[in-house]
Amino acid sequence: MPDQVKISHEELERDGFCQNPFFECLVAEVPEENKSKDGFTVVGYALYFYTYSTWKGPTVFLEDLYVMPEFRGNGFGKGLLCKVAKVGKEKQCVRLQLSVLDWNTPSRDFYAAKGAQDLTDSEGWHFIRFDGQNLYNLANEAPKD
Amino acid sequence: MPDQVKISHEELERDGFCQNPFFECLVAEVPEENKSKDGFTVVGYALYFYTYSTWKGPTVFLEDLYVMPEFRGNGFGKGLLCKVAKVGKEKQCVRLQLSVLDWNTPSRDFYAAKGAQDLTDSEGWHFIRFDGQNLYNLANEAPKD
Repeated sequence: MPDQVKISHEELERDGFCQNPFFECLVAEVPEENKSKDGFTVVGYALYFYTYSTWKGPTVFLEDLYVMPEFRGNGFGKGLLCKVAKVGKEKQCVRLQLSVLDWNTPSRDFYAAKGAQDLTDSEGWHFIRFDGQNLYNLANEAPKD
Repeated sequence: MPDQVKISHEELERDGFCQNPFFECLVAEVPEENKSKDGFTVVGYALYFYTYSTWKGPTVFLEDLYVMPEFRGNGFGKGLLCKVAKVGKEKQCVRLQLSVLDWNTPSRDFYAAKGAQDLTDSEGWHFIRFDGQNLYNLANEAPKD
């Protein structure tokens, strides 16, 4: 859905490679002889950041997991997921979280097989988002300090 | 649910007041003459952190919003929510996100009235969590660098 992307390369670079970056990223690379049809050796990535539970502590949140279509079915996705879990564990995170769409049965089944809990099904958690003018309206209603 | 809390004051202090903190927090204070039955002037708080959308950019995520029962119904919760929106806006965040339980109709109605989208209802997003042994198992399956 490229028409949904509102962020530029410059913004991604600024936000990910500054002193206190908003996210971290791991890439999956193949040897030169296995490069993609278009000549790339980076064939997938996992983008994640750290969130926090005031009950349990630091959490690693996997925001994006992507593998080029021609490289799917070879364990790159699973490898990236496991690597993010390892990085999180090394940073003392007590949880790995992510979100998934309900129609994405292959992914949901995979996560469940690995022991993940679906907190929307089991506890009824819903995602809520404010953006655009609704976010500005909230901000404008903030009390004075 | 105090039996669910597995984190100590020392850990919260370490994680929130280090060089690169996992979270930020705003508190609601009342004048000394309006202090709580137990003698507190801090009567509520909002705890939040920054997440990231690779499509849209920085997001402020409201993890905890709490007001002491005896101070509810006076706009403290709304004030804290709006203040977090203001902080997020000042940090160039394009979204404010949070999660809510499906049985919490008053909160869900309030967010909806303020223009929030429920992404679980409208798009089918589910929360997935790995923790404990399941997280360690994933980490142990990580490929070598």
